Amino acid sequence: MSSAGTDLDEACDPRTDARGFRDALGQFGTGVTVVTTRDGDALVGMTANSFSALSLDPPLILWSIRQASKRARVILRAQAFVVNVLADTQSGVARAFASDPAPTGLFDDVSWSEGLGGCPVLAGTVARFECRQHEVRRAGDHHLIVGAVERCSVTAGSPLLFVQGEFVGRHALTPDDEIGADESATEAPGHSEDAASFARVVTAASYGLSRRFDEYRARLGLTVGEGRILERLSRRPMTVDELGESAYLGPRAVEDAVERLTRTACVVRSGDRFELTEAGDLCRRRLAEAAEEFHGTVLDEIPQSDLRVARRVLETFANPSV
Amino acid sequence: MSSAGTDLDEACDPRTDARGFRDALGQFGTGVTVVTTRDGDALVGMTANSFSALSLDPPLILWSIRQASKRARVILRAQAFVVNVLADTQSGVARAFASDPAPTGLFDDVSWSEGLGGCPVLAGTVARFECRQHEVRRAGDHHLIVGAVERCSVTAGSPLLFVQGEFVGRHALTPDDEIGADESATEAPGHSEDAASFARVVTAASYGLSRRFDEYRARLGLTVGEGRILERLSRRPMTVDELGESAYLGPRAVEDAVERLTRTACVVRSGDRFELTEAGDLCRRRLAEAAEEFHGTVLDEIPQSDLRVARRVLETFANPSV
Repeated sequence: MSSAGTDLDEACDPRTDARGFRDALGQFGTGVTVVTTRDGDALVGMTANSFSALSLDPPLILWSIRQASKRARVILRAQAFVVNVLADTQSGVARAFASDPAPTGLFDDVSWSEGLGGCPVLAGTVARFECRQHEVRRAGDHHLIVGAVERCSVTAGSPLLFVQGEFVGRHALTPDDEIGADESATEAPGHSEDAASFARVVTAASYGLSRRFDEYRARLGLTVGEGRILERLSRRPMTVDELGESAYLGPRAVEDAVERLTRTACVVRSGDRFELTEAGDLCRRRLAEAAEEFHGTVLDEIPQSDLRVARRVLETFANPSV
Repeated sequence: MSSAGTDLDEACDPRTDARGFRDALGQFGTGVTVVTTRDGDALVGMTANSFSALSLDPPLILWSIRQASKRARVILRAQAFVVNVLADTQSGVARAFASDPAPTGLFDDVSWSEGLGGCPVLAGTVARFECRQHEVRRAGDHHLIVGAVERCSVTAGSPLLFVQGEFVGRHALTPDDEIGADESATEAPGHSEDAASFARVVTAASYGLSRRFDEYRARLGLTVGEGRILERLSRRPMTVDELGESAYLGPRAVEDAVERLTRTACVVRSGDRFELTEAGDLCRRRLAEAAEEFHGTVLDEIPQSDLRVARRVLETFANPSV
């Protein structure tokens, strides 16, 4: 998508074509972090999406900073830093901390508390890694920074993502003109103005449904993966591979979920397959009831005939015959 | 979300709580790559999401591999490798290449061509980086591998993402039970069965609309960002910061789009703001017409009265009153 302006499929030499290289890098989606530190009384923070896990034992993470960045010097001499993983509601925070040099009063507009070495830990984020600086080294035009993680924490919520140059979220962020809504559309005859805004309503409804249902699932103490695995196992016993494939989960997520569900006696292993216990089936039914309650609260007021019409219309959108 | 099973907000010590550390790492979304290489006649490939840009000049990228991985030895002695960034249609490829040790015949089921050093370049991906191995070093329980990029290429399309243990895409991947659909729902009285499947239709319609419109935009040779910037500038001249904020774009994406639009004389700078030229306005109108054509083909057959009913229903979903 973001590559439509360049030569598609044409190989570029990144040593002479920096634009082509950046376009290619933009195809790899990432989360968005703000790395924070303290320099005496001064607080420092900058948006970075070069974060990566590096080692589990010992726990190490890495990120990189441009050598030319005005904040590089302060960050390199800091003994500690915090990597704050932003939530999908925080694209404004990402934007504010991306300016170089940093505007003054940057930390006045966000809530934070003191973490390791007095470094600011930002509120509203989905994860935080408090790190000792483990190693710094030059690599091309960047410094590669490795942090030894001393403390980390997680908050429920969807992360902000950066994909093809855009900030996106799974539930939030629906730009007005995502589907080509446009003021000039009002000049066009007939259906168009309705159509574009109709498309926006479809997207908002999809986000709204999925966000509300996540709240119901979280109240049961179940993750997305656990919910899916309970549902899949109610059909038949499955291997880890089969579960991953049918539930769209990575192998580690399946293993983690199955381990948790085994601990709570919802699932038992039988050979190389897992199957649902009575307790697991009860849990699955509770989730179904939560879905029931959810849909009830949303749909109770809507006449069945209207739902039928809406479904017919939406099916046209789902499979446009063009 | 994926953290609902752990103690929310409670700090964990990752040196003693590997699970807590992994949960926190899972909050940072990533793209998904398959790194491929060649060892004599043998082809080797493995799924990795630890990819990161490292330097623009010289062009360097990095990724990491567990020292315990059965493929580590072959990969470490390879002089060249390719990082293939998967499209959102390729979660099956991600899964196949994630098995360790690799199943035999792994490369029989995917299309590929020979790249740098004879390494396999996978088809259907959204970007490819052909690298010389620049440096390898131990870091905790992983090897950190730095590649010098000699060639890269891009194909239009949406990337596969890995977020909170799940494979997700912007347009594809709509698991059946995303909104709590469940076979037991048929046992429940009344609206429930309809409601869950209705929710799925809403999601499918939202994906369908957005995918189809991307095709229209791409035919005009415009990126998502360029389309949004043309629309925003038709309202009033804006600075780079204002454009980024209102179009949900990162600063670099705004700069790239503005530079391209300036080159094609669609946009001119005036002080610290950018404004639309006549050519730019024409381009914006063409995009609006594309939206028009798109909506026309999809909506022409649908009676206005049905659209009104569907919209009323969807607005309830977008803002559930619970």
